[in-house]
Amino acid sequence: MAHIIEGGTYVQDRARATRRSLLEAAAQLFLEQGYVGTSINDISGRSGKTSGAIYFHYSSKEKLALAVVREQFAAWPQLAGHYAAPEVPPLEKLVTLSFEVARALREDVIARAGARLWAERHSIDAAVPAPFAAWTAAVTRLLADARVKGELAEGVEPSSTATTLVCAFFGLYSLTDEVAGERVLAARLHQWWLLVLHALQARPDPAALIARARARCPE
Amino acid sequence: MAHIIEGGTYVQDRARATRRSLLEAAAQLFLEQGYVGTSINDISGRSGKTSGAIYFHYSSKEKLALAVVREQFAAWPQLAGHYAAPEVPPLEKLVTLSFEVARALREDVIARAGARLWAERHSIDAAVPAPFAAWTAAVTRLLADARVKGELAEGVEPSSTATTLVCAFFGLYSLTDEVAGERVLAARLHQWWLLVLHALQARPDPAALIARARARCPE
Repeated sequence: MAHIIEGGTYVQDRARATRRSLLEAAAQLFLEQGYVGTSINDISGRSGKTSGAIYFHYSSKEKLALAVVREQFAAWPQLAGHYAAPEVPPLEKLVTLSFEVARALREDVIARAGARLWAERHSIDAAVPAPFAAWTAAVTRLLADARVKGELAEGVEPSSTATTLVCAFFGLYSLTDEVAGERVLAARLHQWWLLVLHALQARPDPAALIARARARCPE
Repeated sequence: MAHIIEGGTYVQDRARATRRSLLEAAAQLFLEQGYVGTSINDISGRSGKTSGAIYFHYSSKEKLALAVVREQFAAWPQLAGHYAAPEVPPLEKLVTLSFEVARALREDVIARAGARLWAERHSIDAAVPAPFAAWTAAVTRLLADARVKGELAEGVEPSSTATTLVCAFFGLYSLTDEVAGERVLAARLHQWWLLVLHALQARPDPAALIARARARCPE
C-alpha cells in the first residue's frame, strides 16, 4: 500500500513498528496465558498501545492470533533457503534444518506462541493455518533431491516419508516437556535421526551425517 | 469403600452408574467444546444430573477433567495385557498395539476427550497426567524382549528408542486431521512402520510383519 503523502515513509515505518510491537506483546501473552486467557486489554497493557490501536491494526483478537501463527510457525521452510548450497548433501541439509527449527521452537517467543496457538486452535474462532503442508513440501523436495543424487535408500518414497518425518518431528517437539527444554529436545532429535537415517540412507552412516549436520548448526 | 448398610450394594452400584454417566457426558462435552467452553451446567444438562450431584461425585470441573484423562488416555498400556501370548513376536505385538491404540483414539469418546484435554492442559488449573511415561515403559519392555529373542537390530537401545517411537506416534495422531480420520491415520502408521521397522528389525521384513500385525487387529 503506497502512502502518497509528504512524510509517507515515516508514517509507514511507524505503522510497521507499531504492528511489530503489538505482535510481540500478543505472542508473549498467548505463550504465557493461552489464547482464551489473554484479552485485548492485556495486550494493550503489555504493549503500551491503546485498544483502539490494536483494533485499527488487527481488527480482532482472532486476527492477531492468526498473524502470530503465520509470522513464523507456518513459515519455517523458508529457512531452507539457507541450504541452497549445492555442495551440501540433501539429507544433511534436512538434519541441519531440523535442529535449527527445534532451536527456534525453544528460543523464539513468536514461534513458541505460534505452536501453542496451533495446539489451542479449537478454542479460536477462525481457521488456524496448519504449517504442515508447507513443511512437508520442503522435506519432500529434499528427499527427492537425495533420490536424484543416489543418497536415498531404495523403496523410500519421498512424499509419504516426508509426512511421516514431519509428524514425528512435531511429536518429539510437543512431548518434550517445556521444563526439560532445548537440550533434551536436541538429544531426542539426535536419537530419532540415528534410527531413521538407518532406513533413509542408501549407504547408512547416521552418526557421521548427524555430526556434520550439527557442526553446521552452531549452538 | 464399604457401605455397611442394608441395601449397600445397591447404593454402591447406583453411585458407580452415576459417576460413569457423568464421566461420559463430560467427555462428550470436553471433546466437542473444549475444557474452557464446557460448564458444570452443560454437564448437568447433558447428563440429566443436578450440579449438586456433579460436585458430590467429582468436587470440581478440574477433577472431572482429570478423571477423563486417567480413565483411558493415561492408561492404555494395559491393552498390552492382551499380548502376553508368548508365541507372538514382540515387535509384532508392538505394531498391533499401535493400530489398536490408533483406533481407540479415533472411535472412543473418552480416549479422544482425554487427548484433547491433554492438548489443552495449560488451560486446566491442575496437573494433567501425561500418559507418555507409562506408554514409553510398555514399549521399552517390548523392545527389550525383542532384544532377548534376537529380533532387534544391533545398536538399537530399547529405552531411548521407545521415547522416540512414542513421540512419533503421538505426532502422527495429533497431526492427522480429525476430518481425514481413522483410515488416514492407519495409512500413515503403516508408512511409518515400513520406515522404522527397517531400522529396528535384525532381519528386516517390514511389509510382512505389518501384514501379520494388522491381521491380529480386526477392522
